Amino acid sequence: MSLPSGAEVRHAIDVAAGRAAGSLLLRGGRVVNVITNEIHQADVLLAGRLIAAVGAGVNANAAEVLDLGGAFVAPGLIDGHVHLESSLVTPSAYAEGVLPRGVTGVVCDPHEIANVAGEAGVRWLLAETEALPLDVWVTVPSCVPSTPFETVGSEFGLEAMERLAAHPRVVGVAELMSFPDVLAGDDEVLAKARMGETRALTVEGHAPGLTGADLHAYLASGVGSDHESTELEEGREKLRAGAFLMVREGSVTRNLDALLPLVDPRHGDRVGFVTDDRLPHDLLTEGGVDVLVRRAIAAGVNPAYAVRCASYNHARHYRLPRRGAVAPGYVADLLVLEDLEGFAPRLVFKEGVQVAERGALRAGVPAGAADAAPGPAPDPAVLATVRLGAFDVDALRIPATSGRVRCIVPIPNQILTAQTTVEPTRVDGEVVADPERDLLKLACVERHGVRGGAAVGLVRGFGLRRGALASSVGHDHHNVMVVGANDRDMVRAARRLEELGGGFVAVADGEVLAELPLELAGLITAAPLTEVRDRLDELDAAAARLGCTLPAPFMALSFLGLAVIPELRLTDVGLVDVLRATLVGLAADD
Amino acid sequence: MSLPSGAEVRHAIDVAAGRAAGSLLLRGGRVVNVITNEIHQADVLLAGRLIAAVGAGVNANAAEVLDLGGAFVAPGLIDGHVHLESSLVTPSAYAEGVLPRGVTGVVCDPHEIANVAGEAGVRWLLAETEALPLDVWVTVPSCVPSTPFETVGSEFGLEAMERLAAHPRVVGVAELMSFPDVLAGDDEVLAKARMGETRALTVEGHAPGLTGADLHAYLASGVGSDHESTELEEGREKLRAGAFLMVREGSVTRNLDALLPLVDPRHGDRVGFVTDDRLPHDLLTEGGVDVLVRRAIAAGVNPAYAVRCASYNHARHYRLPRRGAVAPGYVADLLVLEDLEGFAPRLVFKEGVQVAERGALRAGVPAGAADAAPGPAPDPAVLATVRLGAFDVDALRIPATSGRVRCIVPIPNQILTAQTTVEPTRVDGEVVADPERDLLKLACVERHGVRGGAAVGLVRGFGLRRGALASSVGHDHHNVMVVGANDRDMVRAARRLEELGGGFVAVADGEVLAELPLELAGLITAAPLTEVRDRLDELDAAAARLGCTLPAPFMALSFLGLAVIPELRLTDVGLVDVLRATLVGLAADD
Repeated sequence: MSLPSGAEVRHAIDVAAGRAAGSLLLRGGRVVNVITNEIHQADVLLAGRLIAAVGAGVNANAAEVLDLGGAFVAPGLIDGHVHLESSLVTPSAYAEGVLPRGVTGVVCDPHEIANVAGEAGVRWLLAETEALPLDVWVTVPSCVPSTPFETVGSEFGLEAMERLAAHPRVVGVAELMSFPDVLAGDDEVLAKARMGETRALTVEGHAPGLTGADLHAYLASGVGSDHESTELEEGREKLRAGAFLMVREGSVTRNLDALLPLVDPRHGDRVGFVTDDRLPHDLLTEGGVDVLVRRAIAAGVNPAYAVRCASYNHARHYRLPRRGAVAPGYVADLLVLEDLEGFAPRLVFKEGVQVAERGALRAGVPAGAADAAPGPAPDPAVLATVRLGAFDVDALRIPATSGRVRCIVPIPNQILTAQTTVEPTRVDGEVVADPERDLLKLACVERHGVRGGAAVGLVRGFGLRRGALASSVGHDHHNVMVVGANDRDMVRAARRLEELGGGFVAVADGEVLAELPLELAGLITAAPLTEVRDRLDELDAAAARLGCTLPAPFMALSFLGLAVIPELRLTDVGLVDVLRATLVGLAADD
Repeated sequence: MSLPSGAEVRHAIDVAAGRAAGSLLLRGGRVVNVITNEIHQADVLLAGRLIAAVGAGVNANAAEVLDLGGAFVAPGLIDGHVHLESSLVTPSAYAEGVLPRGVTGVVCDPHEIANVAGEAGVRWLLAETEALPLDVWVTVPSCVPSTPFETVGSEFGLEAMERLAAHPRVVGVAELMSFPDVLAGDDEVLAKARMGETRALTVEGHAPGLTGADLHAYLASGVGSDHESTELEEGREKLRAGAFLMVREGSVTRNLDALLPLVDPRHGDRVGFVTDDRLPHDLLTEGGVDVLVRRAIAAGVNPAYAVRCASYNHARHYRLPRRGAVAPGYVADLLVLEDLEGFAPRLVFKEGVQVAERGALRAGVPAGAADAAPGPAPDPAVLATVRLGAFDVDALRIPATSGRVRCIVPIPNQILTAQTTVEPTRVDGEVVADPERDLLKLACVERHGVRGGAAVGLVRGFGLRRGALASSVGHDHHNVMVVGANDRDMVRAARRLEELGGGFVAVADGEVLAELPLELAGLITAAPLTEVRDRLDELDAAAARLGCTLPAPFMALSFLGLAVIPELRLTDVGLVDVLRATLVGLAADD
């Protein structure tokens, strides 16, 4: 809900005043007070979806009474910045994963699906999350496409952003990743920031490593946050300069340890915890934003403040009314916990309804998924989105030229890539993959049916001896990324993805060894989180059997087209030298 | 300004990035960082109305450079809750008084003028403050009239509130003083709160002494603040329950000492400093909200946090974009100070323009007043608002009955009143004033021309031996309050106010001894603050010559009709027993 109804508010007043019975009394607990950063004894009385009263001696007239015996009552956690698509599962399955862990809300940036399916994709996500027992607030993607050097599935400009901004669950303009454009005073990007500001939406930032004059110029645009700090002094400078400091602990990028000294009550409402991107395996083992709370408390942070960084502070930043605290009139998103160190809720309440107990969802939850059986058919905009056109082995040919060529080098467990130059192996006037030298072909195949075609380059570091791996997740444009030891298997892998509507696939000798369909926009599957994790394990195992030496090869593959992060990338248009912000040829002297 | 223009933002980016020259460089100062509660060295570069950069090594290309030699740079102060009418001067004169002290913005509740002149009165105030070099944000009065037991000048209901809520400088719904109605779930008052909440306006509170279930019920309505805490535990309970704690230091009610332990960085953005009501004498000697900053620092509060409570925290509470901090992209409302303890700004900048130096305004400031010569005529709605109708000595007669009668007893230097019962002095079948016994007549004369008439009672504590005092300031309905030793002088005093269009007057033997015209709505004068102070001194001296023993007798008189504060009050309708919320007769056994 955006706001409780007038009748609900009146009922909460009646319950608090003792004129009406509450729905639930949590008696004898200790409230994690994220407003004052303290823990104190208090009963908590609910009136339907709202908290009516918090304190000693509240109205004891309630339909249900739970004696907490000193257990803690905390607000439900809110993740301040997450790309839900990175979980590979539907929002409903994501909710199933994080709700029992105490996450009752997320602010998401549906950047990935906007690149594939544009406004229709974002609206699909909004519809999918309408009835979930997880609050999904949305920031409107601001950088689709991320660069001029890539082909995306749909136009997504200022007008689409403005239309979406009117949705009641839209709370901000999503991260302005194109910070060079901001620094250059580019009209289009400044108009997007201003669109947010004039609508009283937050404008989210993305300023990796920005400092000094660049940081000032970036923030002067009206950007109000950043979640890309990796170093303590970087974080401190951004805090001082007015950015809401989002401390991230993703699957790949983990910044909590470095920024921990800034997670301090003296920074009040200026620090938030976010996950950004979390993969199924991590969601299942570590959780969502709860992992930051747990780890911060273990590191000695004031426990109430640790919870605050994943609740109240986001509610303040995004101006979410009546959210993020255990206080009268607030929405009853509550956790009951035996201890704060473990931060494993015994009970989770969403809008006053118990939705999980001891790590397991209650039957029939999430209601948004289960009640709506059989559910509406997915929006056609997110189905059959992998359309390769005339792609075949001819598209993978690299005519041989003389001299050294550029070669992308993934860095294990990082989004960054390096580059090198090599003397390629040449056969019959063509540059070919040479698994003996760990020189593989990398292709980025346009899959939105917009212009067709593919770009081809070389990559070193996968170690495949045979076969091919393909992914329809290819940040941020999500064209099909294929790496392979031979052209036929590369084509087979890409075509298999087209049949599946997207996903990951490992192929050798024309046979599919393992696969994960991601049939929704080529990014998301309707399968549950555990099945996705198992399939990913199978895919990694299959890649290893093909000789792959790179950890998490499909993740690595999906980032090789990300033309906003240094150093060398391949999009469907060609090789991109990110630091120079330009297309380059394969020949090293181009 | 509500928001800087797109061109201004772009220019600030250009300046920060070093592509354009700034307007002013403040070099070598120490920034009072109200975001991180620390003080650190930084240069501050302005680009017109905006701060472009704050840090070391900023772009040194600026039209003007000021070397600060280690002086402090702080954000301009914002008073979070003030009734400007209490200053008795125009907003322009108020600005003249507080700007040199570092106050660059106020959030005002034009409750008084709304009682007299309704929506037109609030619009007059909005127009008067449009071009001032002081930001005047407005909360829409929510309780006009304050009780059903009084006559006000104009209807002012939900519809008027809704129309005003669309004004860009309206940031909230003003204090919901009628907390008993909130606790009772009254439809009308809850609709007003909801009007604010659905428009993303803050809903301000007024909850004197409220605790436990009453406090919970009150806050459940959506009220987000309170400025009526007088005791430490009261303040702590409200903070914990989610109220933004406004610490008040008015002319009469002073709560900083009691609440000081709560003014602590660990409370982050949840504490603000406000003045509520300040009289000319205090404005001139102590200042506006700056007095709280100065006194808090003297009491040992972290100086940056003390400044924060009168700047950034209000900007956060009221969602004032780009306000309240020294940070890139923020509006350049800045103070330069030699020391923080004295908190006497050497320089004051409003939107990048120097407006004051060493306690004095620069020539031509406030521009809103001086530039606009000769200025528009005041709205007729605020002129000639004292209309007494057929009022004469007959209206003051009290037919004698047997038995004791009720008598109001003002408590020196408090808003509270006590009550007692007395055996009245009776002459010729009438109850009369008896100065020998310090029993004076008190009248509340309806002055809005709505229903006419007056109510009459007795008061003990003024000590007047002769003559009469009258005031067209009579909270909250602002009918004419008259106290006197004889009926003829009471009528003369009231009629003199009608001639003046309102004000204060002291009369004896038919002669006016001293007076202060308040010709605008009977609440405000166009005279400067110093003249008002001098006239008030003359009035107090005249009252003393008439035998008055009560300190600040005109202030005391103005509060004797305030039917929302215990214990016994007199409105134009009659005597009000505030605790029982009912009209009572003069006879003690009624």
